Amino acid sequence: MRIYVIGIGAGDPDHLTLQAAKAIGRTDVFFLMDKGEAKDSMIALRRRLMSSYGRPGHREVQGRDPERDRAPADYPGTVADWRSRRSAVVEELIRDHLDAGQTGAFLVWGDPTLYDSTIAILDEILARGAVEFTYEVVPGISSVSALAAKHRTPLNRVGRPVQITTGRRLAESWPDGVDDVVVMLDSGPGLAAAPDDADVYWGAYLGTADELLAAGPMAQVRDEIADRRARARAEHGWIMDTYLLRRPDGKDGPETTA
Amino acid sequence: MRIYVIGIGAGDPDHLTLQAAKAIGRTDVFFLMDKGEAKDSMIALRRRLMSSYGRPGHREVQGRDPERDRAPADYPGTVADWRSRRSAVVEELIRDHLDAGQTGAFLVWGDPTLYDSTIAILDEILARGAVEFTYEVVPGISSVSALAAKHRTPLNRVGRPVQITTGRRLAESWPDGVDDVVVMLDSGPGLAAAPDDADVYWGAYLGTADELLAAGPMAQVRDEIADRRARARAEHGWIMDTYLLRRPDGKDGPETTA
Ligand SMILES: C[S@@+](CC[C@H](N)C(=O)[O-])C[C@H]1O[C@@H](n2cnc3c(N)ncnc32)[C@H](O)[C@@H]1O
Ligand SMILES: C[S@@+](CC[C@H](N)C(=O)[O-])C[C@H]1O[C@@H](n2cnc3c(N)ncnc32)[C@H](O)[C@@H]1O
Repeated sequence: MRIYVIGIGAGDPDHLTLQAAKAIGRTDVFFLMDKGEAKDSMIALRRRLMSSYGRPGHREVQGRDPERDRAPADYPGTVADWRSRRSAVVEELIRDHLDAGQTGAFLVWGDPTLYDSTIAILDEILARGAVEFTYEVVPGISSVSALAAKHRTPLNRVGRPVQITTGRRLAESWPDGVDDVVVMLDSGPGLAAAPDDADVYWGAYLGTADELLAAGPMAQVRDEIADRRARARAEHGWIMDTYLLRRPDGKDGPETTA
Repeated sequence: MRIYVIGIGAGDPDHLTLQAAKAIGRTDVFFLMDKGEAKDSMIALRRRLMSSYGRPGHREVQGRDPERDRAPADYPGTVADWRSRRSAVVEELIRDHLDAGQTGAFLVWGDPTLYDSTIAILDEILARGAVEFTYEVVPGISSVSALAAKHRTPLNRVGRPVQITTGRRLAESWPDGVDDVVVMLDSGPGLAAAPDDADVYWGAYLGTADELLAAGPMAQVRDEIADRRARARAEHGWIMDTYLLRRPDGKDGPETTA
């Protein structure tokens, strides 16, 4: 048995790579995990890709995502626990629905190596040793690349680093030693804590018909973004957004002579 | 006049996205910049993509890259200077070869927003105001995504940040506050300075027929990687490599209770 972990890009069906389209075309069984609120439009994109590039006779099986505490005190611990329960569900799906010699696939949002649990779950299943398979990861356009492309801005400045982090982390403190920071998985506190002297490049529902973009000095656009965020969330019932924060050159970098 | 800045992925022709293939198909004039040593195989990939997805009658014009000091003392200053000279070359190409109503394109290695100067050069040309055009950026699979996919490893750990930096920076010091670091543009000193307690996931010529991969505890694989790197560089005359370094959990993170 062989399994593909296929990055499908961050919302635009044309983010799909040729490699991903070919992998979809070699798949017998697609495993879909129910994703709660956001599921409808996210599952709609997956269905569209399966029907456009899937081989005749491919099947689709759906697993139920275990419940998850969205604002836990112990974030990594809670995720690890949720992951274990999820890996049990996935193991069952693979065992029950994938025959010897067949190919299965997970269609993963964005790039499968960025804030996604599919790889860790498959490794956990393989480590338990109850089912055997090989797997391959197909890279995808991440929401980070999609964001920067829409704003036509480089992620990093010349010879300087860029950090990708979470809203939760940013709310704790601005990361040391970097002036260019991409924030994901922010339910609000990151944006509120972002420094006034940063320029922000913000995008929500990137690549979809609902895409929203805003950019400018944080001090000027913070309220506008918070507002559009709140309205979009109320309208859709969920939101996916990401932003790049860029502080003045050398603020914390080693070139500072202050 | 309209210009596309098209990410073509990091070496594998199948990294191309559908969006990129469509943009190539709408392009009248492709601007190619001579890239020195690596140029032959990098230009070969571009030619292949242009002939597979280009429209009939598209043209190709080549610009001469200005000379560049590869090991300057003042890295950002030298790059800024090189960029200005390059933007003069590019401005001339656009003015001389793109007619009103036509579409031009740059085929950019990997993702155009990661350690690439094309966006900054176009902004510089627009700021001078001598030629007018609009431009669009098409995201691509970066070498970072390609690396992590080949090693089937997430870039970040749960809820934790990942930093993308240069070999030069890493050689100065391990970045503060992160345990997961991707290193690009390393001519050697980064690898030599990487800490013994890190796991390394290394890849060279990713996505091409010459791809090399190695992974393991730094203390064990450092010499092997340095060796394979030196041999590959001697054989090809140039090398493109990237690696992810992963230090033990919480080494510098806020969860540390040490
Ligand atoms: C669980 S992570 C998955 C990231 C995904 N693997 C990727 O490469 O983009 C979900 C987060 O990604 C970001 N995200 C994903 N898709 C997005 C989109 N279309 N627009 C804006 N942000 C997006 C948001 O920050 C969201 O909270
Ligand atoms: C000038 S930067 C361009 C990066 C490119 N925009 C991207 O998204 O990958 C060149 C660096 O990218 C990395 N790189 C690009 N292509 C690569 C490949 N196929 N294999 C390994 N590293 C690669 C190397 O670190 C190289 O020094």
